Amino acid sequence: MGARRARQAKGAKSVGCCPYYHEAIELIGKRGTGAILGVLLNAPAAEGGLRFSEIAQAVPELSDRLLSERMKELEGRGVVERTVISGPPVHVEYRLTEMGRALQPALNELRDWARQWLDEADEDSSAPAPARATAATR
Amino acid sequence: MGARRARQAKGAKSVGCCPYYHEAIELIGKRGTGAILGVLLNAPAAEGGLRFSEIAQAVPELSDRLLSERMKELEGRGVVERTVISGPPVHVEYRLTEMGRALQPALNELRDWARQWLDEADEDSSAPAPARATAATR
Repeated sequence: MGARRARQAKGAKSVGCCPYYHEAIELIGKRGTGAILGVLLNAPAAEGGLRFSEIAQAVPELSDRLLSERMKELEGRGVVERTVISGPPVHVEYRLTEMGRALQPALNELRDWARQWLDEADEDSSAPAPARATAATR
Repeated sequence: MGARRARQAKGAKSVGCCPYYHEAIELIGKRGTGAILGVLLNAPAAEGGLRFSEIAQAVPELSDRLLSERMKELEGRGVVERTVISGPPVHVEYRLTEMGRALQPALNELRDWARQWLDEADEDSSAPAPARATAATR
C-alpha cells in the first residue's frame, strides 16, 4: 500500500510539472481547431492570409458561428492574427502568428502518428472501434 | 475571384489529404485524455500498469465516471490495454499499447510548444487572454 501511494504521488507529479501541456492539448483539441490550424499551416505564405470564407470552405463541418468562435479563441491566445485589409472591398484576413507556426512540428508528428496507426487500424478490419480494441489487447 | 476559388480548393485539399489527422486531434483533445496519456507515458514501464485509482488520483479534474468513459474510449481505439490481474485481490491495470506509446513524440512536441509559448505569454502579462491577443496582433 505504501508503494502504491508512492506511485500515485509520482504519477501526479509528472503531470503537475507541465501545467501548460493540458492547456495546449485542450486548445488544439477543440472540435474544428485542428482542422483550422491545418488549413492555415498549409496556406502558402506568399499568398497572404486566408479570408473567413476560405477557412469556412476548407472546414465545412463547422458552422459559421462555431468557426467564428474558434477564430476568436485562437486570436485571443495569440495563435492567429486578424488583419483588416482596407480593400476595396474591405475584408479581414487571418494568418498564423509565430506562436501559431511553431505548432507545426507537433501537428506534423500527430499527423504522422495518425497516418501510421489509424490507417493501419482501418486496414486490419473494416469493423468499428470495438474490434480494434480486441486486436490491440490480444 | 477565380484566384480565390483556386485557393479555396487548395485549402480544402490540404486538409482532405489527412483524414486521420482530425481523428487523432479529436481523440487526444477530449477533456482529460491528454492528462491520462501523460500519466501513462510517465509511468515507469518496470512497475507494470497503473490502476484506475492511480490514474484517477493523477487526473483529479476528471470524475470517476468521466475517467472511466475516457479509458474505455482509449481502449476501444487500441491506445490503452486493460489487463485483469488475478490477485488477490483481483484488480485491473492499464498501460499504453505500442500504438499509445507511439504518441510520445507528438505529445512531447506539444509539451515543448506549450512550455515555450504559453509560459512566455504568462510572463509577458498577467492579464487574461485578450491582452495577449493585442500583443500578438501588433
